[in-house]
Amino acid sequence: MAPSNEDELTQAALQRLEGAADPRFARIMQSLITHLHAFIREVDLQPAEWMTGIEFLTAVGRTCDDKRQEFILLSDTLGASMMVVMLDQLRAAARAGQEQDALHATETTEATVQGPYYWDGAPELPCGADIAPGVRGEPAFYSGRITNTRGQPLANALLDIWSGDGEGVYDMQVEGAGMAARARIRTDAEGRYWFWSIKPSYYPVPVDGPVGRMLIGMGRHPNRPGHIHMKVAADGHVPVTTHLFVAGSPYIESDAVFGVRPSLVVEFEAHAPGKAPDGRALAQSWWSAHYDFHLQPEAA
Amino acid sequence: MAPSNEDELTQAALQRLEGAADPRFARIMQSLITHLHAFIREVDLQPAEWMTGIEFLTAVGRTCDDKRQEFILLSDTLGASMMVVMLDQLRAAARAGQEQDALHATETTEATVQGPYYWDGAPELPCGADIAPGVRGEPAFYSGRITNTRGQPLANALLDIWSGDGEGVYDMQVEGAGMAARARIRTDAEGRYWFWSIKPSYYPVPVDGPVGRMLIGMGRHPNRPGHIHMKVAADGHVPVTTHLFVAGSPYIESDAVFGVRPSLVVEFEAHAPGKAPDGRALAQSWWSAHYDFHLQPEAA
Repeated sequence: MAPSNEDELTQAALQRLEGAADPRFARIMQSLITHLHAFIREVDLQPAEWMTGIEFLTAVGRTCDDKRQEFILLSDTLGASMMVVMLDQLRAAARAGQEQDALHATETTEATVQGPYYWDGAPELPCGADIAPGVRGEPAFYSGRITNTRGQPLANALLDIWSGDGEGVYDMQVEGAGMAARARIRTDAEGRYWFWSIKPSYYPVPVDGPVGRMLIGMGRHPNRPGHIHMKVAADGHVPVTTHLFVAGSPYIESDAVFGVRPSLVVEFEAHAPGKAPDGRALAQSWWSAHYDFHLQPEAA
Repeated sequence: MAPSNEDELTQAALQRLEGAADPRFARIMQSLITHLHAFIREVDLQPAEWMTGIEFLTAVGRTCDDKRQEFILLSDTLGASMMVVMLDQLRAAARAGQEQDALHATETTEATVQGPYYWDGAPELPCGADIAPGVRGEPAFYSGRITNTRGQPLANALLDIWSGDGEGVYDMQVEGAGMAARARIRTDAEGRYWFWSIKPSYYPVPVDGPVGRMLIGMGRHPNRPGHIHMKVAADGHVPVTTHLFVAGSPYIESDAVFGVRPSLVVEFEAHAPGKAPDGRALAQSWWSAHYDFHLQPEAA
């Protein structure tokens, strides 16, 4: 029968899924329709508000092009992307039967959003290299180990690293610039890594489109705190896409894309000009950051 | 504090609304974020599925142009548009303090979706006119009254009427064609209306875009049952945008946009060739449909 009220309307929309060939797709659409209808009823959405929503989504679509993905930005700023990242990591842990066992296991390094600036094929450099020569910003020495969740060091593990510069600008945002502040570094036999780069700065997500206008309407700023990205991988282990965040950076408590997790916030220690632990002599002040990554073994 | 788990992530996204200047916008976004996060968790949405969603929305955006609004089509086919229509009519009834009192009041004619084919400025024709001369399809005689919800006839009320032809094609879908099967008709002193048009046919919503692919994935057909549109208006009354649906039309039980309501389904009576009630002589068989519209007085 045709729906004569709102409850029947939702039931009719759900029943229409009975012919779906793919049960997973049907399950996703069932949940989506249920929540979409519940949202509309909960706020008693008015026709003019509905039209504003249609116009907003259309503007988001118009803002997408080869270089810009405004729907991902929308997902990021609503916390949806980070929710998917969190669930994905929980799922991997469940597959491995991993209990966060405080007595025995080191917890897996937490994941966060990849963001729009990953660029595959960064140069592979040796430990100790400066991966950001000539890049604006204050020098920073990064070091630590990559281990499994039992604390055993992983030799020849790969850190694929990228960040913006000391003013929050990525190489990809500069027309015609090549790669900068990017490298792949492998751990040594003891699972150690170390390299030089710059201390990254906070920066705004793109705000000249509809998502920027949405953020203004929500009374929110568009900024991400300073962070350096890495994909961390080792044979036989679940790779992690994550950041290290600069403790005390502006917006560390209010990342526009909700990517900060407490475990990923790192103290950057200030140093006077002079000799660094690896023997490098610096004429300017510099920073050091230490972080150990923990990868979960793949499920057998 | 930065969120360290999924619950905290949702809380963080909601707290970020505290600075919104417009409380209604904040309320809508609060409900939207809550349901969006709940949907993602409920189905444990995987990164590849999330990306499929991003790509789908991007394709919907690309399909929108001056003549086509794929986001409205998406809203229609998910039942969201019809939910907004139902709530709007409930709200108008509540404003008027209207209780659906079975003893005294005639219920207000139920509303349904406007659809994409409304064209403002149809010619005003007298009662009895054929509003679809030369249009493909079987002739149909439409008649009835427009009253208020107490059953009192409304003189000089306006019916703004449009439909596709007997094969389900609208004038707007034919490049360069003028208006066809459209008119505005006013009721006489007793609130009566009558006119000739054609018996409309079922037809598919546009299926050559991403929403069409979504419908296929959901195992759904894209068709709307045969219907004729009208906006019904009278001074001092709440106007209603509605359809009359042809009883027994294919897809009457499964309208692709969930627009059918039981009260809007009308029996079309078949007649042999010959003289019609208004004196018109027909060489072919014809149909008649009778419907009384009931408008709610505006709140004082």
